[in-house]
Amino acid sequence: MADEVLGVSVGRVVTFTKQITARDVELFAEASGDDQPLHLDDATAKRSRFGQRVAHGILTAGVISAAIGTRLVPDGIAIYLGQTLQFQRPVMPGDTITATLEVTALDTERRRATLSTTCANQNQETVLTGEAQVLLDALRDD
Amino acid sequence: MADEVLGVSVGRVVTFTKQITARDVELFAEASGDDQPLHLDDATAKRSRFGQRVAHGILTAGVISAAIGTRLVPDGIAIYLGQTLQFQRPVMPGDTITATLEVTALDTERRRATLSTTCANQNQETVLTGEAQVLLDALRDD
Repeated sequence: MADEVLGVSVGRVVTFTKQITARDVELFAEASGDDQPLHLDDATAKRSRFGQRVAHGILTAGVISAAIGTRLVPDGIAIYLGQTLQFQRPVMPGDTITATLEVTALDTERRRATLSTTCANQNQETVLTGEAQVLLDALRDD
Repeated sequence: MADEVLGVSVGRVVTFTKQITARDVELFAEASGDDQPLHLDDATAKRSRFGQRVAHGILTAGVISAAIGTRLVPDGIAIYLGQTLQFQRPVMPGDTITATLEVTALDTERRRATLSTTCANQNQETVLTGEAQVLLDALRDD
């Protein structure tokens, strides 16, 4: 398989599914420092266009990170080089998000892959679209 | 001030600084589902090109989210529409990250702002660059 790097070739598709709970939103707020009341406080969130608390957009992007980090490279690891994100719909605490990645281009010499990255909710509505660039890397033997 | 929306005008600069601790990396792993050993396991991380644990790239992006969510809009809230991310250098647990945002364009009619978004570490090395698009929104009165 010449057009393959560490088990990754063009057309490879992987998914990762995770429910984003209210607790996850609180953990992300603590980890990132983003304690905007829209995400954490019911009274403020009710005064917004959403009428209820919404998850941080970057937390939804974290589900893409999970797919890249844990599912993409069978025989090595992925090192994140870049990501574009277009937020299409709000994600509410309790929603179940599936990130789907597809390898759309592969530079075998430089071991770089381009991925389409899409997140959908439990109603199959697209909530996030974008593209990622990753370096496919091997771990050294112990 | 005609060329202003909810206290935001072109040239406005805000920053947000946060240390990314090993605990923050663990919280983000739990919130996102990204439990890649490169971020969590010393033995695996030693076999990588970094030689030690690194923070998730999307967690560093979370510091941009914090700046947008908590500092950008004096008289309202920011709703994330899009973000591009180019990861320039690894962030290690213990690093202190400063996100700097500058408003580079403003569509007053549609209330949309474009921001340059840069993160640097405690040594003033740029670790992340990109651009964000946000909707500037008001909260309804109670």
